[in-house]
Amino acid sequence: MSKETPQLLKGFRDYLPQQQLARKKIISKISETFERFGFAPMDTPVLEYYELLGGKYGEEGEQLMYKFEDQGERKVAMRYDLTLPLARVMGNYPELVKPFKRYQIAPVWRADKPQKGRFREFMQCDVDVVGSASIFADVEVIAAMAAAYKSLEIGNFLVKFNDRTLVDQALTKLKVSKTDIVSFMRTLDKLDKIGEEKVQQSLVEQGFAKDLLAKYSKLMDEISQDYVAEMKNLLSGLGVEQMKFDKYLMRGLDYYTGVVFEFALTEKLEFGSVGGGGRYDNLIEKTTGVATPAVGGSIGFDRLFAALEDLKEISPQTAAEVIIFNLDKNLTADYLNMATNLRNAGVDTEFYYETTKLDKQFKYAETKNIQVAVIYGGEEAKKRKVNIKNLQEKQQETVDLDDLVTEVKSMLW
Amino acid sequence: MSKETPQLLKGFRDYLPQQQLARKKIISKISETFERFGFAPMDTPVLEYYELLGGKYGEEGEQLMYKFEDQGERKVAMRYDLTLPLARVMGNYPELVKPFKRYQIAPVWRADKPQKGRFREFMQCDVDVVGSASIFADVEVIAAMAAAYKSLEIGNFLVKFNDRTLVDQALTKLKVSKTDIVSFMRTLDKLDKIGEEKVQQSLVEQGFAKDLLAKYSKLMDEISQDYVAEMKNLLSGLGVEQMKFDKYLMRGLDYYTGVVFEFALTEKLEFGSVGGGGRYDNLIEKTTGVATPAVGGSIGFDRLFAALEDLKEISPQTAAEVIIFNLDKNLTADYLNMATNLRNAGVDTEFYYETTKLDKQFKYAETKNIQVAVIYGGEEAKKRKVNIKNLQEKQQETVDLDDLVTEVKSMLW
Repeated sequence: MSKETPQLLKGFRDYLPQQQLARKKIISKISETFERFGFAPMDTPVLEYYELLGGKYGEEGEQLMYKFEDQGERKVAMRYDLTLPLARVMGNYPELVKPFKRYQIAPVWRADKPQKGRFREFMQCDVDVVGSASIFADVEVIAAMAAAYKSLEIGNFLVKFNDRTLVDQALTKLKVSKTDIVSFMRTLDKLDKIGEEKVQQSLVEQGFAKDLLAKYSKLMDEISQDYVAEMKNLLSGLGVEQMKFDKYLMRGLDYYTGVVFEFALTEKLEFGSVGGGGRYDNLIEKTTGVATPAVGGSIGFDRLFAALEDLKEISPQTAAEVIIFNLDKNLTADYLNMATNLRNAGVDTEFYYETTKLDKQFKYAETKNIQVAVIYGGEEAKKRKVNIKNLQEKQQETVDLDDLVTEVKSMLW
Repeated sequence: MSKETPQLLKGFRDYLPQQQLARKKIISKISETFERFGFAPMDTPVLEYYELLGGKYGEEGEQLMYKFEDQGERKVAMRYDLTLPLARVMGNYPELVKPFKRYQIAPVWRADKPQKGRFREFMQCDVDVVGSASIFADVEVIAAMAAAYKSLEIGNFLVKFNDRTLVDQALTKLKVSKTDIVSFMRTLDKLDKIGEEKVQQSLVEQGFAKDLLAKYSKLMDEISQDYVAEMKNLLSGLGVEQMKFDKYLMRGLDYYTGVVFEFALTEKLEFGSVGGGGRYDNLIEKTTGVATPAVGGSIGFDRLFAALEDLKEISPQTAAEVIIFNLDKNLTADYLNMATNLRNAGVDTEFYYETTKLDKQFKYAETKNIQVAVIYGGEEAKKRKVNIKNLQEKQQETVDLDDLVTEVKSMLW
């Protein structure tokens, strides 16, 4: 690394072509799937008035948010998630037809302590239905996300779900007060990480009755039956294959008001949740003043990308499929012509710029993982022939110059 | 607009689904084209050390750059263009194979005075070849950009080009000093905007000889002939159709060292340049300390988008092609099944969530510009039939339930 060059900021990443080609593919599969379910893309600025974001993400949010004063002395902040900007959009454009079904795939910024798999700039893939209280909106968000995971061929996954209204109902029946419900939910939410025993211990330490957890569990089993049957029925109607009611699933965010759900890769449990979401019927009203039910979910892109890398699903990528070697200055016109014909036929093609030693050109093609090389010198030109070489299988053919495009295509596919 | 909702920041934009679908299409056409030419995508962070960007864009840059201190007291700045981050990447990853051919389509931020068509957050589409001094790199960058414009079906366009080395050569012959060359070029660069007469006047005011412009013009005609012939030959070999040598074209940026070029829509001259670029053989060395020739160009995305809107090339877009109306609560299983089958067949499909009046559902479909409605109630269910309606042509057919996917597809395509 050169001394003079400034570094990349800590907690940030460059996406060099190999990673970026893979990311692009994943993003495009996710968008395609969301659109298949009738969700349309939207984008919002990276900067927002601090007024919109400030105080909305608790103390942690206040610490981690990138905020500053702009040249016009406005207090501004960098996007912290995609939900608050959505809430603003709903307030700024009341003419938007409801239910408003949008997805947004975009980076957000949090000045968190960088760790393995945790970055200060990371992608969120959010899909939301705004303006519908229907259970169909709940299951369609879940189904769209499930279809997105499926499209990525990431192995089996499971969606766990619960409903905050059931939790409320059970705890109210068990005489737990409103504030205590929140503490109870927060503690239960740790069950996956710390286990049932420690959750029980923590609950008792907080002053909850010893038998509360057992009672809660039993009561939830009783009152959830119809709901679980309906959810499973609707979800399987929408093509979701593996789902499980989880009475202990809470999801941290206090703003959820109904269904909550979480996706896990069953073959990669160590990756934990790779996405989740829930219904948040009060959040948008806080921003817009207009009661607006909503449900949404978010795919944890970076964790997913890490999982895909781990599953070796991300292979070395290259932008070019074919390279035309540069052997003779007098043949430039032919080289350019070949490149243009291949490109017009939809083949991603490079032309090597320097007339240099063939082994240097082979080396370049190999490093870039290009599949086919077109080798054409004075000898070939005389006979109107051209050599095409499959660089992976090390096979070479000599074909008529006029058949180049057809022959290259059949070698590629 | 609701009183409570914070506003969008001045100079920033939301991209609601209609615009965002159109933007996505344009971006994907441009990327596809760049990849066709063997350029690979790359991405870099929105934030960089201020040290990288500071002092690199003149006084204006210093004023317009969004910069602040982060939580770790680092001086950071928001990306101002895509060239300096590229220079940093070249320095940080010396292992990258050269020529390094990358494109980057990403927003940049400048706290400029907002005007019609000028925003504080805007997209740049950059394509560059780093590490090659070859004229092939020059023409491939130009050809890749030309192919991108062509793919957008934006009407005829023209690429104008010049070469800074010729300009230098001519002016040196005319005994103009090094510093005066820069002033001369800057003045000439305004020719398109203020006309030849005013340029002449301004040159004289600056103390240049009265006949300098005429002498320059004549000399350029003489010394440029071979170069122009070669460029035209190579460019047309790469499929570029309309090009013109323009001895007055300079392009503002001082860092250009060789070819400079600019694209204009010939049917929309009022839009001015919709992109351009040039060779900058010294810039990367300033960041990395390693001599690295480079050439690149940038498509002015927002101006292009405006031009496309003006040419009515951006039609109302919708994410869903088909909507399944919700007429009867007892038919839910059938509705979900239809939706799933259509989606699995690649059809973007919405399901209306509420069992409500049919005209409300029609209204929703119309507003969202959905093409086909699937209408299925108790009567149809009994006969295992389903109605499909083309909402644009107001034609309705009744088909067998089992043929739904095939019939919808043939109505759509």
